[in-house]
Amino acid sequence: MPHRVDLNCDLGEGYGPWTPADDASLLEVASSASLACGFHAGDPATMRRTVRLALERGVAIGAHPSLPDLQGFGRRDMAITPEEAYELTLYQVGALHAFVKAAGGRLSHVKPHGALYNQAARDARLAEGIARAVRDFDRGLYLFGLSGSELTAAGERLGMPVMHEAFADRAYQADGKLVPRGQMGAVIHDGEEAAARVLDMVLKGGVKALDGSWLPLRADTVCLHGDHPGALERARTLRAALEAAGIAVAAPTARP
Amino acid sequence: MPHRVDLNCDLGEGYGPWTPADDASLLEVASSASLACGFHAGDPATMRRTVRLALERGVAIGAHPSLPDLQGFGRRDMAITPEEAYELTLYQVGALHAFVKAAGGRLSHVKPHGALYNQAARDARLAEGIARAVRDFDRGLYLFGLSGSELTAAGERLGMPVMHEAFADRAYQADGKLVPRGQMGAVIHDGEEAAARVLDMVLKGGVKALDGSWLPLRADTVCLHGDHPGALERARTLRAALEAAGIAVAAPTARP
Amino acid sequence: MPHRVDLNCDLGEGYGPWTPADDASLLEVASSASLACGFHAGDPATMRRTVRLALERGVAIGAHPSLPDLQGFGRRDMAITPEEAYELTLYQVGALHAFVKAAGGRLSHVKPHGALYNQAARDARLAEGIARAVRDFDRGLYLFGLSGSELTAAGERLGMPVMHEAFADRAYQADGKLVPRGQMGAVIHDGEEAAARVLDMVLKGGVKALDGSWLPLRADTVCLHGDHPGALERARTLRAALEAAGIAVAAPTARP
Amino acid sequence: MPHRVDLNCDLGEGYGPWTPADDASLLEVASSASLACGFHAGDPATMRRTVRLALERGVAIGAHPSLPDLQGFGRRDMAITPEEAYELTLYQVGALHAFVKAAGGRLSHVKPHGALYNQAARDARLAEGIARAVRDFDRGLYLFGLSGSELTAAGERLGMPVMHEAFADRAYQADGKLVPRGQMGAVIHDGEEAAARVLDMVLKGGVKALDGSWLPLRADTVCLHGDHPGALERARTLRAALEAAGIAVAAPTARP
Repeated sequence: MPHRVDLNCDLGEGYGPWTPADDASLLEVASSASLACGFHAGDPATMRRTVRLALERGVAIGAHPSLPDLQGFGRRDMAITPEEAYELTLYQVGALHAFVKAAGGRLSHVKPHGALYNQAARDARLAEGIARAVRDFDRGLYLFGLSGSELTAAGERLGMPVMHEAFADRAYQADGKLVPRGQMGAVIHDGEEAAARVLDMVLKGGVKALDGSWLPLRADTVCLHGDHPGALERARTLRAALEAAGIAVAAPTARP
Repeated sequence: MPHRVDLNCDLGEGYGPWTPADDASLLEVASSASLACGFHAGDPATMRRTVRLALERGVAIGAHPSLPDLQGFGRRDMAITPEEAYELTLYQVGALHAFVKAAGGRLSHVKPHGALYNQAARDARLAEGIARAVRDFDRGLYLFGLSGSELTAAGERLGMPVMHEAFADRAYQADGKLVPRGQMGAVIHDGEEAAARVLDMVLKGGVKALDGSWLPLRADTVCLHGDHPGALERARTLRAALEAAGIAVAAPTARP
Repeated sequence: MPHRVDLNCDLGEGYGPWTPADDASLLEVASSASLACGFHAGDPATMRRTVRLALERGVAIGAHPSLPDLQGFGRRDMAITPEEAYELTLYQVGALHAFVKAAGGRLSHVKPHGALYNQAARDARLAEGIARAVRDFDRGLYLFGLSGSELTAAGERLGMPVMHEAFADRAYQADGKLVPRGQMGAVIHDGEEAAARVLDMVLKGGVKALDGSWLPLRADTVCLHGDHPGALERARTLRAALEAAGIAVAAPTARP
Repeated sequence: MPHRVDLNCDLGEGYGPWTPADDASLLEVASSASLACGFHAGDPATMRRTVRLALERGVAIGAHPSLPDLQGFGRRDMAITPEEAYELTLYQVGALHAFVKAAGGRLSHVKPHGALYNQAARDARLAEGIARAVRDFDRGLYLFGLSGSELTAAGERLGMPVMHEAFADRAYQADGKLVPRGQMGAVIHDGEEAAARVLDMVLKGGVKALDGSWLPLRADTVCLHGDHPGALERARTLRAALEAAGIAVAAPTARP
């Protein structure tokens, strides 16, 4: 079977009169997009527009549920219970699903946003709340989580289709965690180097950690960041390198 | 075919720490319930709890979408466009549908709340925005609207299943509009009289208007108000009168 | 006494991660700025930053309260009561006042935003609710309203300091109302022509209406729109024309 | 100088159509009340009504700012920065101040609500953000915080008037922290015992900890909980015991 990887980007992260902070031009390169559902961004009008955009581009659509924190863009940890995680995930997934269904598409995956993503990577009970919500809504939905995290583990325990997400432009610690932003070497700025790292992940099942050791790392989907200058250029470099190496770039639900 | 009518009530109109303003005891009497979806009431935790409650009682579940107005409980008219009406309806219907589906139930209908209901009764374009959202999401959903209003007309033009809603405890003008609250004779306080009026609606297809004239009025579903003292008592009186007259009380999706 | 006029602009109309839709470069030209207070835009962090910016530029600061409508940017009419208008004005004015006071400044005026501004221009009771809130909070605050509208009238009845606002780039009907956007000739695109119209307002106390008739119009303050390309250029043209004509550009609270 | 203590209660914790969860009857007993300001409860209409109520009863009025979490009633920890703590405190204090000033009263104190109170008790930098906001707004405002906590320490470092708050019905650990709810012995249910403990705090400057050791504890103000059955009865017992012991019950700003 040929190698294959999904490239995902966030989408529709505007609100009301404010245009999205993300970069829709990434849709040229991405195979999946995760759409804001109203709690950190994405009012109903923005959701509708963004769903249409993703369908036109033929990109697989996922829900991008968040903690209820519009002021903080869903980036501030909140001490929610697993039940609350279940409820806010279900609410937002359902809302986005409605726009996708009404537009004639299919919802493909769920990827928690920001602090919810990070909290679920660390906290097994929170992760299970989120995973159960996705599964209870639709067993066919893919759950996207940080590779090797509590979130992917929760999905696997529940027997759901899971996608391990890796980052092309972020360094990893030897224990598999991301090197925190702000720390030296945390971000890989060179597009070629980032592409080479993703090739390692997909072809060799791992990547070199910051300390030089080899870190086994599963990369089913790779996150394309849209909020940096040069992001589109780097994304193109990455996709070209993957295709040159014979790796199919495709959403999990697509037949490449 | 025997006569039949649905009795509907609003449900789950609490938020966060605040318990619902409605009266869940009406579930003893109602055949359908319309659940708040977050915009005028109904945070995700309340929605989940309320869906469970309705499923336990075997009551058909509908979405009760509202204008985005938590402070005003969705009771203040807002100058939204038909597109905005489409979007906020779709968002809320989708969110509630997710809770119903995850709990193993089926969404049965959509009834706009408060000012959205009233605006849609008068404004054909707004009504069409709402009706299209419901139909685009699921052609099998019943649209509940004020009997003989622009909202039911919009649903019928679109070929959707529509339920004309009548009020047991409200007087009608000769033109079919409700006598505005606050006006003399607007509210029928006597439970027996209210029941007799509903019998007229169901069996004779009309009711006596405030000016004494006969008003043809279709009553597929009758609204049970829960926010008044004595509401449960009156609801019981109504249901007993209907059953005594051989009228089946059942949700549109149920086989009575 | 020499002629004098205030030039005002809206400010701080961002929210959380989203940068303001307005144009802070207008502060080079404006003598007053009206700051969003959280209901249509302006989370607390944005308010704090914007207050600092206005203080640095020496521009007089006003509150820009809105209907509670973040999704709609406060541009959708809402059927609120005069009491509700009082309450939402007082809340927002108080919130902005706190940032101004903490930063060592003084609140200078209140100008309702968007639909609240337009509704208050037409509805005497709503206007009085707003005016009373401003007066009850601080009798020294200037109330900005559409020139010759119900809002300025309400302020005058209450004995408050009032500023009649005129628009440089909008055509007027013979009855003093703005020609609705979208109608032919509604917007004056030429900067020189707009400046000439403001000179007429300030020096002659009126302006030519769309039908060619002379409309008496009081212009204590002129609104600089920031959300159009070329807005800054036009604002500079206007200020230069005013100064060339010996008209002092200054906030009502400033000594020019 | 005679002994003196303040008795405070939370107030106005409703929202829109939902009536407050607190118990206004405590105003018979309390000398101070802390009013919700919109972020966990307290829409503008509720704030206005509650300010009037407190003024009628002659109770000193404080602001009760919260994390922005209406769904969670401000009870869920959020990872906010000290700057964000500053901003949300200033916003809410300003909003409440406006209602108090417009009604002819004076704002007396600020007491953070729920999770914000607890986080500020532990986190010196967050505490300083809150304290600075209060001081920058008005140096005369009292800052209420958990007795002996980082919040009261921050206020003292800044030279502000500070009130150490103690709990009549909660057991303390030997280190001065509250015994977590849910733990055995955490809540003192007996009203007489609770009153005796407060007498110890006020007259002897301490209280017996759960392990039997003597805990020095400053009690400038004691919190009356309103959300329990029997709360009013216990509050009366406490006030009577204090007065019988010659202790004046009065707000810090009052002349007893």
